Amino acid sequence: MRPIRVFIAGIDGYLGWPLALHLINRGHTVAGADNFFRRKWVQEMGSCSVTPILGMEERCKAVEECFADKLLFWEGDLRSYEFVEKKFREFEPEAIVHLGECPSAPYSMIDVHHATFVQMNNITTTLNILFAMQNLMPEAHLVKLGTMGEYGTPNIDIPEGFFEVEFRGRTDYMPFPRQANSWYHWSKVHDSNNVMFACRNWGLRATDVMQGIVFGTRIEEMRDYQRMMTRFDIDQSFGTVVNRFCAQAVIGHPLTLYGLGSQRRGFIPLRDSMQCLTLSVENPPHEGEYRVFNQFQEIYSLSELALLVQDMSKELGLEAEIVHTQNPRKERETHYYKADHQNLLDLGYKPTENIRSEISQVLVDLMGYRKRILELKAVLLPDIHWEGQNRRVALLDSAPAEASKLN
Amino acid sequence: MRPIRVFIAGIDGYLGWPLALHLINRGHTVAGADNFFRRKWVQEMGSCSVTPILGMEERCKAVEECFADKLLFWEGDLRSYEFVEKKFREFEPEAIVHLGECPSAPYSMIDVHHATFVQMNNITTTLNILFAMQNLMPEAHLVKLGTMGEYGTPNIDIPEGFFEVEFRGRTDYMPFPRQANSWYHWSKVHDSNNVMFACRNWGLRATDVMQGIVFGTRIEEMRDYQRMMTRFDIDQSFGTVVNRFCAQAVIGHPLTLYGLGSQRRGFIPLRDSMQCLTLSVENPPHEGEYRVFNQFQEIYSLSELALLVQDMSKELGLEAEIVHTQNPRKERETHYYKADHQNLLDLGYKPTENIRSEISQVLVDLMGYRKRILELKAVLLPDIHWEGQNRRVALLDSAPAEASKLN
Repeated sequence: MRPIRVFIAGIDGYLGWPLALHLINRGHTVAGADNFFRRKWVQEMGSCSVTPILGMEERCKAVEECFADKLLFWEGDLRSYEFVEKKFREFEPEAIVHLGECPSAPYSMIDVHHATFVQMNNITTTLNILFAMQNLMPEAHLVKLGTMGEYGTPNIDIPEGFFEVEFRGRTDYMPFPRQANSWYHWSKVHDSNNVMFACRNWGLRATDVMQGIVFGTRIEEMRDYQRMMTRFDIDQSFGTVVNRFCAQAVIGHPLTLYGLGSQRRGFIPLRDSMQCLTLSVENPPHEGEYRVFNQFQEIYSLSELALLVQDMSKELGLEAEIVHTQNPRKERETHYYKADHQNLLDLGYKPTENIRSEISQVLVDLMGYRKRILELKAVLLPDIHWEGQNRRVALLDSAPAEASKLN
Repeated sequence: MRPIRVFIAGIDGYLGWPLALHLINRGHTVAGADNFFRRKWVQEMGSCSVTPILGMEERCKAVEECFADKLLFWEGDLRSYEFVEKKFREFEPEAIVHLGECPSAPYSMIDVHHATFVQMNNITTTLNILFAMQNLMPEAHLVKLGTMGEYGTPNIDIPEGFFEVEFRGRTDYMPFPRQANSWYHWSKVHDSNNVMFACRNWGLRATDVMQGIVFGTRIEEMRDYQRMMTRFDIDQSFGTVVNRFCAQAVIGHPLTLYGLGSQRRGFIPLRDSMQCLTLSVENPPHEGEYRVFNQFQEIYSLSELALLVQDMSKELGLEAEIVHTQNPRKERETHYYKADHQNLLDLGYKPTENIRSEISQVLVDLMGYRKRILELKAVLLPDIHWEGQNRRVALLDSAPAEASKLN
């Protein structure tokens, strides 16, 4: 493996920060940019990171001390083409990992201004990166973070990006139809389409990562955990579901399933996400290739995961009740779900086998921040509804009748 | 047919203006908004409308005099949600026809700033209209102008928006994959996806019009043609191909085919477009329905149309040579192309049968503006290239070898 120069857009985020550590540990030269929007968005949701993360300046210092390596950081907004071009010119990246987007479905569903902001922010940053690559370094490799949510929940298998279509006696190899379910998820589809076009039209090379829902608190490379931990959100917009379950368990709050809880999704532990993104970075596609990786460890239903969290909590002496709430989202709750994820396995991805110990680790880490979680308790129940109103969801007295049949 | 209140976004444009006349003539109450961006974009391309169109104030006056009816007009930017909501609140439209977008592939390919502008402008205006509908008049009907270019040129038949997919032994009814070929065309795909989601999520109703390439100078309802004519552009960005051929013929400029000229597309005369858009407006879909209409009269190759223009020119005593130029676009020049367009026929669309007389009418109208076309001669050859450079295309000494086999 040849060390390369990797630029991480959104290096201050939940994934960006551990990826920087992971890549530096592998010997790559890492630079990154961030405008700290994630910190502001979570604040806007009345929350903050449960883990007391350091500021970027101190983070860089910690890296320098623990890795004897320098992490280059620039504060700036990727929506400015001039900023992107200037930094690319300066650093000359061989790979760009684009994590600099707003990653929240509920946040995009608040109102017209949030919907527009999320789509504009995400599309513009991607366009700027694509044009800067085309103008300055058409040989570089873009690793773009997308989401499994781009596909929605079709009644057929989900391939990795493309599939063979037969229609009225003729065949073609085509992009798999996307059926996203929030303005945010659609922004990722728009991005995917734009990246695909840039590869076809200019011969750029890109890996579009359809990532499952990430959970976890740590990776091995956080050598000094107190200084190197990544953020951990538990609010309805930026806290992902397993992370929220764990936070709920730690303070004795019921684990809240939206609706039936039989929704099935691909999930991936944080350490596996780092492994996969690194495999993508270190194995670039050829010139003009636009390749799609479905990146998840396994498919689970939300109830299965709630039961797992409940189980692991019990082992740690925590009582965690599971309750159903109204579903603030408009989504299919019982549905077919099967998705390929062979491409990363072929590149050498070794999925975490013990998901139970992974969840246990999250619980143990969070028990150290019980007081902070208690202070943030109010953000654990959602109030952003897909149909437009804004009201706190009600806990249901009992599981919906269909649930007992399913779980 | 019950008269309704129709709001036209982009009422000052090539399609918006004749649609206003057409709908008023049918007895509908029409209002519209425009920020006159189209006039500015064409100016930026070093051109202007060949037809000497009036300003909006005089246009409204002409309507009042000829139709004894009032046309409401507001100057304003649909990218401002407040503007859209204010005007919707005031007018209470039952149907909204959204023509207020930047409609040019080459314009979007100029550079990063134009690409971003086109995508942001088009997506934001559509999101604002969708949210204003959801907030104020969820029963209203959105007629959204898309383009046949959203589909690209797949090797299978193009259905109207959706198709039955069989994959690994299971089936689903899904959106047909889009494979657009410019930042502009992708902006229309992004829009289509957003509109589809708004219908599914909020129960809005919309007709998404995948329109072929429009050509023509007039419709019957231009009762006082001198005052009521619509704009007619001939520059590389805003002049569509048949219109450009006609302008070239009128000044003895060779008709310029990009590359082989064997590219096949759906085309539609201006009067047919008005007929179809009106059929859409007057036959709304049901609540929550997102329906797609492929809107074109017939499929032609570019060479076929050049030969038709040459033919009709000869009848008018004009000599029109046909030449090939380098293709500034990166596109398939020989390809399969077959697309359904049954939905509008089912609603009663009667396609223009005599395309020859349609072209002849354009030539006759343009002959009155020969001097203006001569002044604009410099804009007839493109210099915006899909791969990024900016240089005037060369005329080829002879047709590419493959062309003789094809035409």
